[in-house]
Amino acid sequence: DIVAAIEAALSEGPLAGRHVLVTSGPTHEPIDPVRYIANRSSGAQGTAIAAALRDLGARVSFITGPADVPPPAGVAVTRVQTAVEMLAAVEAALPADAGVFAAAVADWRVTEAATSKMKKDAAGTLPSLSFAENPDILATVSKGPQRPALVVGFAAETDDVTAHATAKRLRKGCDWIVANDVSPATGIMGGTENAVTLITAAGAEDWPRMDKAQVAAKLAARIAEALA
Amino acid sequence: DIVAAIEAALSEGPLAGRHVLVTSGPTHEPIDPVRYIANRSSGAQGTAIAAALRDLGARVSFITGPADVPPPAGVAVTRVQTAVEMLAAVEAALPADAGVFAAAVADWRVTEAATSKMKKDAAGTLPSLSFAENPDILATVSKGPQRPALVVGFAAETDDVTAHATAKRLRKGCDWIVANDVSPATGIMGGTENAVTLITAAGAEDWPRMDKAQVAAKLAARIAEALA
Repeated sequence: DIVAAIEAALSEGPLAGRHVLVTSGPTHEPIDPVRYIANRSSGAQGTAIAAALRDLGARVSFITGPADVPPPAGVAVTRVQTAVEMLAAVEAALPADAGVFAAAVADWRVTEAATSKMKKDAAGTLPSLSFAENPDILATVSKGPQRPALVVGFAAETDDVTAHATAKRLRKGCDWIVANDVSPATGIMGGTENAVTLITAAGAEDWPRMDKAQVAAKLAARIAEALA
Repeated sequence: DIVAAIEAALSEGPLAGRHVLVTSGPTHEPIDPVRYIANRSSGAQGTAIAAALRDLGARVSFITGPADVPPPAGVAVTRVQTAVEMLAAVEAALPADAGVFAAAVADWRVTEAATSKMKKDAAGTLPSLSFAENPDILATVSKGPQRPALVVGFAAETDDVTAHATAKRLRKGCDWIVANDVSPATGIMGGTENAVTLITAAGAEDWPRMDKAQVAAKLAARIAEALA
C-alpha cells in the first residue's frame, strides 16, 4: 500500500493536480458515555475508493468515522465520531474538484447525550430519548457555496433500490448516486464484494457484482473521465 | 499466541481440568437492517482474560459479540450479535466451574426491529422506537440452576464506581464484580490499560492501573486460587 502511494505520488495519472474528498465508515452518535447509535458500515468500500483515487494521482482528503478497516496510505486522514463532526471536517477540507460521500451517516442523534451512564429506573425501563435530525452532509455540500464540480452520494437500500436512489439523487442535488442493496441476504454488508447501480442524469446502470476494490477502480476511472 | 495455547494445553496449570466461560465484547441490537444500538467495548479486556485463563490450563468457552480485537487462540469461540443470542450461547455452554461476564451487554433492545430500512417521514422525524429490557445474563446465570461455583461480573461506571458496583454485586447474586471507571477522561475505554476495583464479599480492593493483560493475569490467578 505504501508502494502504491509512492507510485501514485510519482506518476502523473489522470487525476494529478485534482483534490478529491472522500467520506467513509459509520458515524457513532452517543446516547451516554457507554452507549451509542450507529449505522452498520465496515468502511471497506469508502477506503477502497480513496485508494483508487489516490492511485489515479488525486490528492485525497479522507474523512472517516470509526471503521473496521484502516485508512489507506498516502491520503490525508481526518477521524470523526459523529455526523456533526463529519460535516465540520468536510467543510474544512473544501474546496475540492470532486466529493465522494460513501460514509453511512446516522440520520438522527440523541438531542442531549447524557454525560453519565444512564441507569434503569425501578421498573427497568429506558429513560426516554429524544432525537434530533443530523445535518444532511450530502445535501449541504451539493447545495452549498463550495460545491465540488462532481458530487457523488451513496444509497444503501433494502427495497426498490433504483427507485429510492433515483429519488435521492434529485432530492440531495448531487450528480451521481452509487446505490446498493444491503438486504442481509445479499451478504454485501461486511463482505468483500459489492453489487451497485450507478444513478446519473442519464439513468441507472447496473454494474455486475464484483470485488469492492474493482467497484472502487471503476468508479475512480469514471470520476477521472468526468473531470477530464 | 498459538505457542501459548499449545504450552497451556501441554502443561498442567492450576486450572487444568476446569471449564471456564468468558463473555466479551459489545452486543449489537438492531433497529433495522442498517442501524443498531450498542455499548462501547473493544473486547480487549475480555479477550485478555480468556487468554490468561487458558494459560493457566483452563478449558475456555469464549462467547463474544462483535469486538474490535480477534478472539484468542486455543479457546472455543461462539460469536453472537445480540443479548438474547448471548444468553442462549451462555446457557448452551454451561455447566462451568467459573463464569466471567466481561461483555458490555446492551440493557435494552428495540421491541420489533424493522425488516426494511426505516425512512424519515415528510417532517424528517424519527419513526418512534419502543424498547424492551434485554435478559440480564449475569443475574440469570447467578440465580439459575446451573450456577458456576464462581461467578464474576463486570461493572463499567462513570460515577460512584465502588458504591454502584457493590450494590450491583448484591443485586445480581454474583460472587465478584470487577468494576472500572469508564469516564472519557480516564482513557480506559478503547485503551490498553485498565484500573479496576475488585468487589468481593470481603469488600473493595483497588488494583493499581496496569496493562489489560496484567489485569487479566491477576484476575485469572485469583480465579485459580478460588477454585483450588
